[in-house]
Amino acid sequence: MTHNFRFSGTGGQGLITAGIILAEAAILDGKEAVQSQSYGPEARGGSSKAEVIVSDETIYFGRVTCPDVLLVMSQEAADKYSGDTNEHSIIVTDTLFVKDVPGRCGERVDLPITHAAVEACGKTLFANIVAVGAITALTGCVSDEAIEKAVLARVPKGTEEANKKALQTGIALVKNR
Amino acid sequence: MTHNFRFSGTGGQGLITAGIILAEAAILDGKEAVQSQSYGPEARGGSSKAEVIVSDETIYFGRVTCPDVLLVMSQEAADKYSGDTNEHSIIVTDTLFVKDVPGRCGERVDLPITHAAVEACGKTLFANIVAVGAITALTGCVSDEAIEKAVLARVPKGTEEANKKALQTGIALVKNR
Repeated sequence: MTHNFRFSGTGGQGLITAGIILAEAAILDGKEAVQSQSYGPEARGGSSKAEVIVSDETIYFGRVTCPDVLLVMSQEAADKYSGDTNEHSIIVTDTLFVKDVPGRCGERVDLPITHAAVEACGKTLFANIVAVGAITALTGCVSDEAIEKAVLARVPKGTEEANKKALQTGIALVKNR
Repeated sequence: MTHNFRFSGTGGQGLITAGIILAEAAILDGKEAVQSQSYGPEARGGSSKAEVIVSDETIYFGRVTCPDVLLVMSQEAADKYSGDTNEHSIIVTDTLFVKDVPGRCGERVDLPITHAAVEACGKTLFANIVAVGAITALTGCVSDEAIEKAVLARVPKGTEEANKKALQTGIALVKNR
């Protein structure tokens, strides 16, 4: 079983950190993972993407060509990074920023990610961890224990409790929808 | 012109951050970059690597097969990640941690990276930025302005001055050797 993820939005939304956390959670679960950022000319427009492949087997090719799960946290990212999804892809949007997603999908999941981060933790900067919670709940690709451990290992000291709350908020967004 | 970098050591040395900073500096210089982490079974031993490709052209394949520059910041990383270097590779070691590097190289550069970080900034955790400074000075792959800007954009607020000093320390290690 292999999952291909692409997290996209704007610089400053913490999507590379989200990708690293998901990859490190996969390792804790005994899986293999590749996490990458490709910066092409479009990166200079302020858009940003991070990709993660999680697999039970050895991963030989590290680029995501068709994402199983595409997270879009800005309208520009939706326009730029949804061109290679297909009819099986799950597209997760942040309703605060995204209206239209041109790419095809099997399921579209619109969630108030940033709104929920502000409500639960008081700051938009926890939105990436809310997104991580939502995506792990949607896909079940890593265990609850592993994702919490990976979050706590990567976030700044002193922010552990808020990040735990952000993670739980993201999981609840999916479970209660 | 394409440069392939691999930064290796142990978890907690900040090598993923170092890779992201180098990639973001390349973008500021108008180049393309791919930054990635592959976590295989060896990642569970505590070893860690981050790879960066910097190019003037579009990068189609994002994995480093033979690094032009290999940084090793632990003996275990030297043993694990130097197997695919060749007679043109530059191998940079942190003299505090590394004695032997089994891989072939065209040039081996032994630098007191962590020692210099402690001396200049008072903490080992600036060693990754010292290493970034050393590697950009060695290769000239990104401009001085771009690397400073990229460092300042990624480090925690309040640590900007110490990180600037760490960067300059790394550059000086190479220039004064």
